[in-house]
Amino acid sequence: MKLYHASGSPNSRRVRILIAEKGLDIELVPVDLGTREQFSDAYRAVNPRAVVPTLVLDDGTAIGETPVIMRYLDDAFEQVPLFGMTAEEKAVVAMWERRAEIEGFAAVMEGVRNAAAGLKGRAVSGPHGYEQIPELVERSKRRVANFYDDLDARLSSVPFVAGEHYTAADITALVAVDFAIRAFAMPIVDQHAAIRRWYERVSVRPSAMA
Amino acid sequence: MKLYHASGSPNSRRVRILIAEKGLDIELVPVDLGTREQFSDAYRAVNPRAVVPTLVLDDGTAIGETPVIMRYLDDAFEQVPLFGMTAEEKAVVAMWERRAEIEGFAAVMEGVRNAAAGLKGRAVSGPHGYEQIPELVERSKRRVANFYDDLDARLSSVPFVAGEHYTAADITALVAVDFAIRAFAMPIVDQHAAIRRWYERVSVRPSAMA
Repeated sequence: MKLYHASGSPNSRRVRILIAEKGLDIELVPVDLGTREQFSDAYRAVNPRAVVPTLVLDDGTAIGETPVIMRYLDDAFEQVPLFGMTAEEKAVVAMWERRAEIEGFAAVMEGVRNAAAGLKGRAVSGPHGYEQIPELVERSKRRVANFYDDLDARLSSVPFVAGEHYTAADITALVAVDFAIRAFAMPIVDQHAAIRRWYERVSVRPSAMA
Repeated sequence: MKLYHASGSPNSRRVRILIAEKGLDIELVPVDLGTREQFSDAYRAVNPRAVVPTLVLDDGTAIGETPVIMRYLDDAFEQVPLFGMTAEEKAVVAMWERRAEIEGFAAVMEGVRNAAAGLKGRAVSGPHGYEQIPELVERSKRRVANFYDDLDARLSSVPFVAGEHYTAADITALVAVDFAIRAFAMPIVDQHAAIRRWYERVSVRPSAMA
């Protein structure tokens, strides 16, 4: 089993953190986004959407889409469950993981893709080119501000994003926050005391270095 | 168990089709989007994102997010598996389901939300208001055109979206295509013979009426 990834790709980091939390031994194969290796014929044969990460199983089956990879690894390897144990628990975690993705992660990503000079003509991830729309950058920042408010409210009532335990939902929320800090210079402010408490707890886990 | 839904909501239809395919008996509770009932305190207590659908289990647990509801119902009720049987099969189906969502369904939805007069100030689903960006409408239509091309290529090599069998990925792709036909007046053209063959097959299943 091997994971095609890129070191600077926040989606790749979501999977790497999950792998680290579960203590899995999976070969990492770098894809050089700087030379647009993801658009090479060789990589498109692995993932026709031309995005990282992709997990390739020993039988050659390619699993794309970050949350799908995360869930697959958690289903396939029982140690350190990061989506809970029952179908109901898995659904609750997957719901919160997806909310963190849509409201947080995807909002930052949309802003970055529509702003970065290096992504001109590639405003939407995937194999097709689209021009940037500058208005989306400001809208994305407002979405991230709302994500912070909502995340703070959530973490004021429970210690972790999906409830009482650290789960895959914390991984996506952490990567989203780190991405917003780095790409949008949107730090966690003092008023968001619940996010700050949570962030100090999840970002010191060894997996956060992944 | 009951499903909060809206009859005109394409996301609700994804879940209703899955329920019909599996032959499940789940109470449907209508949410009136026309009077903005999804923003009521009562509904926000069920789903803080203020979106339909939401599945509420007998113990009161609320499961939001359409693909999460679909996967939960398939995990919880073994009859007529729509994501396959093994962890690997489920991952492959979930990957193709998500691709149909991101490249097809979400592209149509983005165009509609940024165009419809009735959605002014609500260009992004969820509890927060955002102004429409007209440029996104054209970009969304180009994304749907690319989705059609890619879907046709895929269906030229396999009979169903995820491979040899009808799965949850076909449900999302069918709802995306019907949504594009209705909202964008983008019919399946003659050149897309593989989509047409597939569409004629999946749209006559009784579940498609759901």
